[in-house]
Amino acid sequence: MCAGLGRNMFRPTGARMRAPGQIKMLQPVAIAQKQLADYASLSSRGLIEEIRARAERLRGKRVLHLSATAFGGGVAEILNTIVPLMIDVGLECEWQVIYGREEFFNATKVLHNSLQGNPTTLSEEQWATWLRYNEINAAQLSDGWDVCIVHDPQPAAVCSLVPENARLWVWRCHIDLSTPNALTLERLLPYLTPYQAAVFHLGAYVPAGMDGRAHVIPPAIDPLAPKNMAFSLEDAVYICGQFGIDIDRPLMCQVSRFDPWKDPLGVIDAYRIVKESQPDVQLALVGSMATDDPEGWDYFNATVAHADGDPDIHILNNFSSVGAIEVNAFQSYSDVLVQKSIREGFGLTVTEAMWKGRPVVAGAVGGIPLQLSDGKSGFLVDGVGECAERALEILRDPPLGKQLGRAGKETVRQKFLMPRLLRDWLELFEGHEV
Amino acid sequence: MCAGLGRNMFRPTGARMRAPGQIKMLQPVAIAQKQLADYASLSSRGLIEEIRARAERLRGKRVLHLSATAFGGGVAEILNTIVPLMIDVGLECEWQVIYGREEFFNATKVLHNSLQGNPTTLSEEQWATWLRYNEINAAQLSDGWDVCIVHDPQPAAVCSLVPENARLWVWRCHIDLSTPNALTLERLLPYLTPYQAAVFHLGAYVPAGMDGRAHVIPPAIDPLAPKNMAFSLEDAVYICGQFGIDIDRPLMCQVSRFDPWKDPLGVIDAYRIVKESQPDVQLALVGSMATDDPEGWDYFNATVAHADGDPDIHILNNFSSVGAIEVNAFQSYSDVLVQKSIREGFGLTVTEAMWKGRPVVAGAVGGIPLQLSDGKSGFLVDGVGECAERALEILRDPPLGKQLGRAGKETVRQKFLMPRLLRDWLELFEGHEV
Repeated sequence: MCAGLGRNMFRPTGARMRAPGQIKMLQPVAIAQKQLADYASLSSRGLIEEIRARAERLRGKRVLHLSATAFGGGVAEILNTIVPLMIDVGLECEWQVIYGREEFFNATKVLHNSLQGNPTTLSEEQWATWLRYNEINAAQLSDGWDVCIVHDPQPAAVCSLVPENARLWVWRCHIDLSTPNALTLERLLPYLTPYQAAVFHLGAYVPAGMDGRAHVIPPAIDPLAPKNMAFSLEDAVYICGQFGIDIDRPLMCQVSRFDPWKDPLGVIDAYRIVKESQPDVQLALVGSMATDDPEGWDYFNATVAHADGDPDIHILNNFSSVGAIEVNAFQSYSDVLVQKSIREGFGLTVTEAMWKGRPVVAGAVGGIPLQLSDGKSGFLVDGVGECAERALEILRDPPLGKQLGRAGKETVRQKFLMPRLLRDWLELFEGHEV
Repeated sequence: MCAGLGRNMFRPTGARMRAPGQIKMLQPVAIAQKQLADYASLSSRGLIEEIRARAERLRGKRVLHLSATAFGGGVAEILNTIVPLMIDVGLECEWQVIYGREEFFNATKVLHNSLQGNPTTLSEEQWATWLRYNEINAAQLSDGWDVCIVHDPQPAAVCSLVPENARLWVWRCHIDLSTPNALTLERLLPYLTPYQAAVFHLGAYVPAGMDGRAHVIPPAIDPLAPKNMAFSLEDAVYICGQFGIDIDRPLMCQVSRFDPWKDPLGVIDAYRIVKESQPDVQLALVGSMATDDPEGWDYFNATVAHADGDPDIHILNNFSSVGAIEVNAFQSYSDVLVQKSIREGFGLTVTEAMWKGRPVVAGAVGGIPLQLSDGKSGFLVDGVGECAERALEILRDPPLGKQLGRAGKETVRQKFLMPRLLRDWLELFEGHEV
């Protein structure tokens, strides 16, 4: 969410706010109140009833989510919805954030990138730092939990340190483990051994040695978050108009980071092919930037250079006041939403785009084919030419675009909304006889 | 929000959740993180910059909001947005909820209804109870506040008890004081005397004896709350279809409580007149019900009886799974939104309806004419015949409906979104040299 990454994120309790350096402890996260009933009308039929039936059998079970942060990023975003919903259906659910100082988070950043394929692994000192902070946090973990769900590698060692504190330990992996740095993974795996279950977004992410313990549960989006609730046309038009979009002419749009894997240059090339046949088309490239990411800025500048001053190409980022609300408006307004990724993790942004009910043209990589069925709920493409061809096909045939958009939205409704994820968790708990 | 009234409401800290009876103290309310930047694109131009400039001059000022509850109702809804926004712009803002037991809230319910015109006033014992709890809470109020804003009559006496604890005391009245029970108001007024400022929704609510201390600041809505963010047509259609609305035929809709002042029977009569000329029209009457309100249920049943089995009249409430999301969908989908009130307070529901961009036909009572300009941003009507006439006019002339809806939405953008309310507060603080 860039400017809006913090939405639905909550401040930790007052103590932490006031004296972050003085407190070495697990921090409970204040939980927003959300109700499953609010999701009923938007979800697929029958799902809410199934959830209530499953939850009834699990009523009062004590479930702890342990994560590295309550702010920013996909994990916090999901927990900020799934935790309140678990509470709403009757679980005694809490969310605690581990304590760590800069040295710890520096080490876990290397760990994270390395598990996603970066050749650099952790130094011995970094492994020791990682383990030391896991020990500090494990020592403070209360016991008596029916389930402890540990999110991502940062707190992964906690289970091996205090296995007696929970009856069921689950490691929830949110990262792309398809091409991990083998050294790093090998070093991590022993800490994953004591978990009774491990959950991955895709089958391709399951490492060897998981035996029967691996579960594949895709992530999901919150249809009531401001970034996802589809805007009315009036709102979308009002917002896009402020960013210089001519609201009387067609718009192609890609929402993504500026990096080679998202191929914004390829999107510009595809737009140029489209423009030969459809001269009034416009393109918006919308993405968020981090101040501490010089490579991202280099690539952003390369994208601007590639656009070569074309007034119909709008390149926008969070430094031009584009946050979650604006991204939502662009998605809700566009005639074609592009996600021309060359490499992708699960690619939940495709689901976010499809939920806006607009037709999506996306690269057939990573988790994208799992979300989008070619020719039915959007188009899967390979390369600039195909991307341009499909975009043009949609621009020339608005009923086709409408049909694809609606089918895409229905796919998301069936498979990728938060209540489905809640159902899957409850099913997993039941399967392990919690 | 009935099912959804609690949205954006937060659980108080753990202690209170676990042992509500054991703790006699002011409770801090956990504050969601919200950012003014997220409101920029939806607000009127220039407003955000004005707010930032004003806030800069007030940076670090300590502001306390004191209210009776963090859950449910308009006050909590507004504070759940305005407090995080005050923090975001640099104030040291907190929100505390007063302690009270049943006897206190029984007394304040009488106080509230009486100030709104109910002939029953408080017994001497109830006044004593009200004052005793104000004393308990005042004794626990910390000092050193630059501003203490006391919301509504429940904690109103606190200022007179510990005037030294804040430099500026403001009483924020959210209730309709146009026809108060004179005895009750007279008894309350001495407790309002020590406040340097009192803020009312309408000029008509300002009691005599306020001298120069009264400010009129209308309330506002949060355009990013799920109840207010205008739905896309796809979402609106999907949801309305589930409640039996024929999505290929026109729909009139009134969202309101079932009571004589909202005149649902009159709406049915108006719909019947419309139906003579436009036989395919449907009507939805959508409202929330309290389990402990037998009069409300009587009136609901009277409304059902008046509908007389017409299959095109849909009468829905929170017990038929209609919460904030569904209300939003009905508003976003309808061809005409009716608010045929006979008596109304400020009537912020009209603003909520107008924000959906649909044409509104509303009774010219209470605060409604302040929100809606007749013939420009909707129609003001008096009586069943006029209501039917205007609804029919809109149904027959879709471009007129669109034009009124758009103008209505623009009015809300200019006058009734949360950032404007924030600006007004900052202006008030500056005016009192905080």
